[in-house]
Amino acid sequence: MATDTVSSASAACGDLLTDVRHASPLVQCITNFVAMNYAANVLLAAGASPAMVHAPEEAGEFARLAGAVTINIGTPSSEWLEGMLAAAKAATDAGRPWILDPVAHFATAYRRKAIKELLALHPAVIRGNASEIMALAGQVSAGRGVDAGDSVEQAQAAATSLARSSHAVVAVTGAVDFVTDGSHAVHIRGGSTWMPQVTAMGCALTGLIGAFAAVHPQDSFLATISALACFSVAGEHAEAQSSGPGSFAYRFIDALAALDAQTLRAQARIVIA
Amino acid sequence: MATDTVSSASAACGDLLTDVRHASPLVQCITNFVAMNYAANVLLAAGASPAMVHAPEEAGEFARLAGAVTINIGTPSSEWLEGMLAAAKAATDAGRPWILDPVAHFATAYRRKAIKELLALHPAVIRGNASEIMALAGQVSAGRGVDAGDSVEQAQAAATSLARSSHAVVAVTGAVDFVTDGSHAVHIRGGSTWMPQVTAMGCALTGLIGAFAAVHPQDSFLATISALACFSVAGEHAEAQSSGPGSFAYRFIDALAALDAQTLRAQARIVIA
Amino acid sequence: MATDTVSSASAACGDLLTDVRHASPLVQCITNFVAMNYAANVLLAAGASPAMVHAPEEAGEFARLAGAVTINIGTPSSEWLEGMLAAAKAATDAGRPWILDPVAHFATAYRRKAIKELLALHPAVIRGNASEIMALAGQVSAGRGVDAGDSVEQAQAAATSLARSSHAVVAVTGAVDFVTDGSHAVHIRGGSTWMPQVTAMGCALTGLIGAFAAVHPQDSFLATISALACFSVAGEHAEAQSSGPGSFAYRFIDALAALDAQTLRAQARIVIA
Repeated sequence: MATDTVSSASAACGDLLTDVRHASPLVQCITNFVAMNYAANVLLAAGASPAMVHAPEEAGEFARLAGAVTINIGTPSSEWLEGMLAAAKAATDAGRPWILDPVAHFATAYRRKAIKELLALHPAVIRGNASEIMALAGQVSAGRGVDAGDSVEQAQAAATSLARSSHAVVAVTGAVDFVTDGSHAVHIRGGSTWMPQVTAMGCALTGLIGAFAAVHPQDSFLATISALACFSVAGEHAEAQSSGPGSFAYRFIDALAALDAQTLRAQARIVIA
Repeated sequence: MATDTVSSASAACGDLLTDVRHASPLVQCITNFVAMNYAANVLLAAGASPAMVHAPEEAGEFARLAGAVTINIGTPSSEWLEGMLAAAKAATDAGRPWILDPVAHFATAYRRKAIKELLALHPAVIRGNASEIMALAGQVSAGRGVDAGDSVEQAQAAATSLARSSHAVVAVTGAVDFVTDGSHAVHIRGGSTWMPQVTAMGCALTGLIGAFAAVHPQDSFLATISALACFSVAGEHAEAQSSGPGSFAYRFIDALAALDAQTLRAQARIVIA
Repeated sequence: MATDTVSSASAACGDLLTDVRHASPLVQCITNFVAMNYAANVLLAAGASPAMVHAPEEAGEFARLAGAVTINIGTPSSEWLEGMLAAAKAATDAGRPWILDPVAHFATAYRRKAIKELLALHPAVIRGNASEIMALAGQVSAGRGVDAGDSVEQAQAAATSLARSSHAVVAVTGAVDFVTDGSHAVHIRGGSTWMPQVTAMGCALTGLIGAFAAVHPQDSFLATISALACFSVAGEHAEAQSSGPGSFAYRFIDALAALDAQTLRAQARIVIA
């Protein structure tokens, strides 16, 4: 992390949001069928230019054009996995960051094999819920399907261990987020209790990490913290105007689109873990 | 049906909604590309845990983890059909209910073949619009694409016949819903005229039947009635606050998330057919 | 174009909207995964009956039932391309219009090959953003991913050239839309600055052109103008009630559903280019 204190991290988040809005980075998102529309709208609201490109025939070629690649295994198939591997390889070869979202990777033998192959291709960031990160670090988790069965707190040691073994930044998102590069760690507070009731919020967040990593590839830790801080502040704004998960989903897009660097700096709640 | 009277059916619906919220059943949804996001949000709003898992490599394995499986042929392909058949077989083998949604099954030779294979695997519940159910019972229907061309009333005899031949509960949804197990039948009133103008409402309802069947597998008739009653009551609540199909779509999610057992019991309009 | 003056074009738009609402044309949409839900809701709001049917096993058969076919290459795959080609061929053979949406066709070798094969099958209408139309006419564009990097004005000469070489109506959509059949051309003003921030708006518009072409296949130029005028007027109505791209997305559906022929005639801003 380029910054040592909480206040400078908050300041840097604001700068990165400004960078995303100005540069409008092209982010290649290979995500699941449930998330594709919502994730694209989240990236557009942040000022990025999302492109959902996954066919094996073009995923690697496109990855060389993109500022970052995000890969989410929510609805895998043999064809899509081929595209994911090609895009991850191309991004790494081109020196671009790619972000891994290991949705329910523990649930079936098929996913366990897929995640192993993807992990070997050096993601810059891994974002998951507590159960996913615990299982990825080899721990027993209470996860069943795509929803978390464990708390973020329970997953912190696993996240640190995974960050060290994978050389990736690891983000565990939940009631309070935890981000670590294996040496440093922060908590990010905020968000909304509606978030787990809106499908694809986590997948969209993975896409947003890609947008921040694209404009700040030299520091994936700070890029990840910045994306999570945006999500948390926009989530608080949206909750204040929502009467349920349906209204929260669209108000979150409005809030993210309206978020400026100054507000983000003032309201981001980042603390050293 | 475990209950003989309308008032006890309404009371039971409330109990089942409470069970869904407490147990948060894992429901494997193999649905079409149009419906995946909305269906997931509907299941989350009811308190269930949806998982969209369809690849042939994992669909059967996952079905053994899930409380129920729902299968919708809205956007079929050879790969997905293989996954559907594997999941349906696994659910039946494990004694878990699976729900069939035969979207536009009459429209092409490809769909007619697919639906025949699926029907042979003993769905616990079949839910469709009037045209779909009539065609499934071998009658001539006015359906063209995915929208109904016939009224629910016209489809009632077909539904009863189909329930008897398939040993499944059959639900015909429309202006007034009709549910039968071949011996008993009820009508469920309510809902909203906006519903046919929001894509994937029916597909999402199929998912919700899965959630109720997962917590009450011993009585698919009551589970189906309960899911439909939730939908109808939430639809009425949402309509009162909507100015068109766009606002109805999200307000329906809010209304379903806010629905409690007591309100459902008081407002469900279930009558013996 | 059957009409020579702007006022008669506006009047005709109103008539065509009435026709769509009365005839409820069946429109086969082969679109991308991001757009499928939103496009279906847009078509329903206009009164059409959308059907997302793309499998190679049924796409051609279904195209013979549909009033029009729309094809969007946003998320291509070998299987889907096969379905697209079958549907386009079947539509042309049956004398039905089909609409081409060449999303980011310049971005990869795979897309360039796909678009070449589709263009050879005689689309009635081609709709794209400025960068897509410029690239399709063989010009250098500033497009990177799916978002436009050029203005509509810069693409007008390319659109005219493309209309002449392809014998298709060409629509370039953006801040001010431009539509030409190679001999005549109009500008359509209106819409909203939120539109580029909502994913799949353009893809949904392509679907809507299909609905209008289905009820007025004898004049694809007027059908295209009418669909674009609906979009622009509904967009202005929606913007007045929106606080960001999230609320705009659903209010646009409400506004389109509420739009009547009289309002469209009065507010459409169509001018000879």
